[in-house]
Amino acid sequence: MKRLAILGSTGSIGRQTLEVVRAFPDHLKVIGLTAGRNSDLLAKQINEFGPELVSLDSSGKLPPGNYRLVSQEEVAAYANVDMVVVATSGIAGLAPTLAAIASRKNLALANKEVLVTAGEIVTTEAKRNGVAMLPVDSEHSALWQCLWGEHGSEIARLVLTASGGPFRQLAPASLARVTAADALRHPTWQMGKKVTIDSATLFNKGLEVIEAHWLFNMPYDRIEVVLHPQSIIHSLVEFCDGSVKAQLSIPDMRLPIQYALTYPERWQNPQLPKIDWRKLGPLTFETPDLGRFPCLRLAIEAGKRGGSYPAALSAADEVAVELFLAGRISFLGIARLLERILQEHPSVPQPSLDDILAADQWARKRAREIGEDQAKRR
Amino acid sequence: MKRLAILGSTGSIGRQTLEVVRAFPDHLKVIGLTAGRNSDLLAKQINEFGPELVSLDSSGKLPPGNYRLVSQEEVAAYANVDMVVVATSGIAGLAPTLAAIASRKNLALANKEVLVTAGEIVTTEAKRNGVAMLPVDSEHSALWQCLWGEHGSEIARLVLTASGGPFRQLAPASLARVTAADALRHPTWQMGKKVTIDSATLFNKGLEVIEAHWLFNMPYDRIEVVLHPQSIIHSLVEFCDGSVKAQLSIPDMRLPIQYALTYPERWQNPQLPKIDWRKLGPLTFETPDLGRFPCLRLAIEAGKRGGSYPAALSAADEVAVELFLAGRISFLGIARLLERILQEHPSVPQPSLDDILAADQWARKRAREIGEDQAKRR
Repeated sequence: MKRLAILGSTGSIGRQTLEVVRAFPDHLKVIGLTAGRNSDLLAKQINEFGPELVSLDSSGKLPPGNYRLVSQEEVAAYANVDMVVVATSGIAGLAPTLAAIASRKNLALANKEVLVTAGEIVTTEAKRNGVAMLPVDSEHSALWQCLWGEHGSEIARLVLTASGGPFRQLAPASLARVTAADALRHPTWQMGKKVTIDSATLFNKGLEVIEAHWLFNMPYDRIEVVLHPQSIIHSLVEFCDGSVKAQLSIPDMRLPIQYALTYPERWQNPQLPKIDWRKLGPLTFETPDLGRFPCLRLAIEAGKRGGSYPAALSAADEVAVELFLAGRISFLGIARLLERILQEHPSVPQPSLDDILAADQWARKRAREIGEDQAKRR
Repeated sequence: MKRLAILGSTGSIGRQTLEVVRAFPDHLKVIGLTAGRNSDLLAKQINEFGPELVSLDSSGKLPPGNYRLVSQEEVAAYANVDMVVVATSGIAGLAPTLAAIASRKNLALANKEVLVTAGEIVTTEAKRNGVAMLPVDSEHSALWQCLWGEHGSEIARLVLTASGGPFRQLAPASLARVTAADALRHPTWQMGKKVTIDSATLFNKGLEVIEAHWLFNMPYDRIEVVLHPQSIIHSLVEFCDGSVKAQLSIPDMRLPIQYALTYPERWQNPQLPKIDWRKLGPLTFETPDLGRFPCLRLAIEAGKRGGSYPAALSAADEVAVELFLAGRISFLGIARLLERILQEHPSVPQPSLDDILAADQWARKRAREIGEDQAKRR
């Protein structure tokens, strides 16, 4: 029986993690649940899964039960837990992740910002505490699976695939006029709003490049992004002899979630879709047009510069996406805003946690100013 | 330094094995070479690689040198050899392979007939002697690479890809009139004549299913064949959780040959082609039409029946392909001939080596009779 704490249990990844738990009641047990605002859903989850510890960031009515209401960090560090699923989004995931690592809990990591903003600190701490960080993202799970039984020194390149989002083939001139509703229509994946917009700008893929850099200790010049609109091949690894390995599946986040939970085993789950080779259409590949997707270039640039640049850019993107979803700034305004942040950010070379949080705060404030300025000029 | 004996060094796989050896003069050394009829090429290879042992099945002038002329079995069992590359074709590869196994030499196995005709004997002997049988076929090498770090019990299915050969899209009525020249025009692979015709009938893929059955200890109902005309994905493994792993490369036999030679390492070889994602066209999949490709069905049927059926069918196919190449029987006549053999063969359930060789002899004689009968009626 693997005992789980799920941080962010009411979000998209959290809910799908609980679907996997439901499929294996004899092998997976929920010990801790944490949520931000959605107290109604958390209440239902408490009734169904009977956790020992619960954390809720906001006020809200929770049902009575045999659980203690504690902080998110306490859930992450709880002695009765084997594995912590970090399914929150945003930099708020950083403190509980570090608490889990300090308590030597293995991690199933779905939160992008943890590695993007504090990759060096988090990977160093994980190593020092002998903690495994198992990726939940479909791309990083694919790379991880392809690297099984291989030697790190024989990897030539990591190739992250990207669907290209809904605007892959739109005439560049039309990009200026796309709405939030357009951008939320993702062709292959059902995800939260922030991630869906980041997929349309490919900013998301840039963050994944940074994550891959830290997870697999790979220099940026050996990580490539290839567009693969069907989202069947989730990523590939090229080896020094010219051989390439790929991991494929029908797009369904429950598969990479389950693999992180069941590792080093694979469990049969009839609920997960299987590829039917008779029905599978052509798989195609394109190189991304960095002119059309400047956010991809900017995110990778932030990763290469290092320091507090990724934290600043990631925070600024949260603000930019929020302003875009609210109709305040245009789709192309997101990239313009991020470009300004990268120009103006006073980066700290080897940032402490405080430096990272300060960069985050600086970037949010500055992004809001730049965004409001853009809003006025529309 | 890995010391190699190459059985069948003048054939297609043998020559490409020597190309790989040429690329790594400090790591691979040729100790033994064997050939059938091509004494001219063998002479050149002796001068270039300076082997200690040489075997030639026919008469022919060989250059003077510091080598001993011995039998193929002696080359395969020679104490100074670390690995035996079985690059011969046909059932004649069986005795030297068993000699190599008895002398505890690891094998790089390119000869299909070894496992097809005597899979049970060969795998049992290999296990008993602690010998690794490393596949050289691109499909089995792909499966092997995809299985790295995975648990055998978690494999759902092996999926062998097949280009479908030159007649994949030909109208079935036209199949009756195709010539040897048509059948030798393989769309993606440069291979010997026998293998190329077997690729056009898909008999080859049936033999590979039997090989996969023995190499990976997998029941026939969990081995599938999928047409993939581009020959980029060389095979796939489906796992019980719905995840699929694939191995990809530009079609070039030197890659699977090199992987078998360098295992458990991968070596950088600038001569091997790399996939360029910017130029890669769509990858497509189809299920094979068993009506159009009866030889695929017949080969798998022989594998499932077991006993001496695969040996008989494989021998009969050699005769059938020879008669087709000589213009004596039609393309569709190959399948008709094999169907008769499968009907008529008096199979032995757990065949000894002698039983297998007798089945081979019976099938050759009977196939020639059936073929000559077909030739008369054309």
